Amino acid sequence: MRAEDRSLLKTMPLFAGLPAGIIDRLIYGSFVQNLPAGAVLFQQGDQPEFLYVLLSGRVALTARSTEGSEAVIEFFRRGDVFIAPAVILDLPYLMSTRILDDARVLMIPAEHFRDQLARDAALNAELVKELARHWRLLIRQIKDLKLRTAPQRLAAYLLDLSGGKGGTIKLPEERRMLAGRLGMTPESLSRAFGQLVAEGVTGRGSRVNIGDPTQLQRFCAFDRVL
Amino acid sequence: MRAEDRSLLKTMPLFAGLPAGIIDRLIYGSFVQNLPAGAVLFQQGDQPEFLYVLLSGRVALTARSTEGSEAVIEFFRRGDVFIAPAVILDLPYLMSTRILDDARVLMIPAEHFRDQLARDAALNAELVKELARHWRLLIRQIKDLKLRTAPQRLAAYLLDLSGGKGGTIKLPEERRMLAGRLGMTPESLSRAFGQLVAEGVTGRGSRVNIGDPTQLQRFCAFDRVL
Repeated sequence: MRAEDRSLLKTMPLFAGLPAGIIDRLIYGSFVQNLPAGAVLFQQGDQPEFLYVLLSGRVALTARSTEGSEAVIEFFRRGDVFIAPAVILDLPYLMSTRILDDARVLMIPAEHFRDQLARDAALNAELVKELARHWRLLIRQIKDLKLRTAPQRLAAYLLDLSGGKGGTIKLPEERRMLAGRLGMTPESLSRAFGQLVAEGVTGRGSRVNIGDPTQLQRFCAFDRVL
Repeated sequence: MRAEDRSLLKTMPLFAGLPAGIIDRLIYGSFVQNLPAGAVLFQQGDQPEFLYVLLSGRVALTARSTEGSEAVIEFFRRGDVFIAPAVILDLPYLMSTRILDDARVLMIPAEHFRDQLARDAALNAELVKELARHWRLLIRQIKDLKLRTAPQRLAAYLLDLSGGKGGTIKLPEERRMLAGRLGMTPESLSRAFGQLVAEGVTGRGSRVNIGDPTQLQRFCAFDRVL
């Protein structure tokens, strides 16, 4: 494992609060795999064999309908851990992964992770907080899908990226993938961007400017998740 | 606290694995409140003051849109704990509660719960599993909303209730509330029940019969969450 990988692990929310030595024990027996864009790390229904840490690149968690259409459930980025709940409970994955940009992935054997959990109180305490944060992100998405119109969902997503503030932000996802994550078609996403001009949102390509964050927050009933 | 309440706590997934004594320390300083149907326990945006355990009755977690319409995010029943993530992170509730049937609620002061978490490894370990189970239930709901048609969502909900098996089940919720939970109108829910007749689902009122569980599982691409 590279020195920069170890530094990254130490800055991750799950590991930052842990005493020295725990990270070493945790990654004992784990290894790094390089994966090209388009590769699939695991499929929905697979029994979990590893806990994954994304060291570089981007990953989408996706699920498939009976008709074969695929929806993006969530994106993961450098420094994210996925998918702990399946590993903790030793139950089949509910989603598949798709590598979006060439990625380096740290693979921690699932059984080793559960062993460490059983013996390390500090790791459990940090994992409780990590799962609680994820839980709130999922509630945000359910509220989006049940209560917010397409432009309101886009507004809340942009405000999450900006930390609730104004100014220019860079969209980390291609617009087609972003549309899937927000539960709309690419055409609806274009219309949503058009409708947000009246709320002070402008931009081109992957650069977007939030002119009046207070107005945009009111428009989508923004609620800080974290 | 009544003897039957204490027995209930000992059977709850969160507490069943804990050594004796921890439950006593945990509920030290907590109290039981009786609440009538229609009462609101807390509002979206409130800072969490308690962790709640439902000793009897039913509760809906709801959220409100900018236009004032209300959506049911989840139901809680006897023996459920809610909402741990806000209490753990000491962040405002993302949802409100509405009491559905007259309820008795155990209220554990939030700060006391966090203190116990900080000092008790076994409690953390059980909470990790509890949060992981909840996480998977939320993923199920997101997959429902993004990928499943209305009849498919209803089918997956019925199979969750039956444990994936056939036979007669009793709907725990009024149809109007159930429609909200499944992200559809009451009219769509009636149509969905009608469409499921072809998949072997029959019944009247709150009694529903699943005639062919395998066919119904195929129909909705059922995935066991727990």
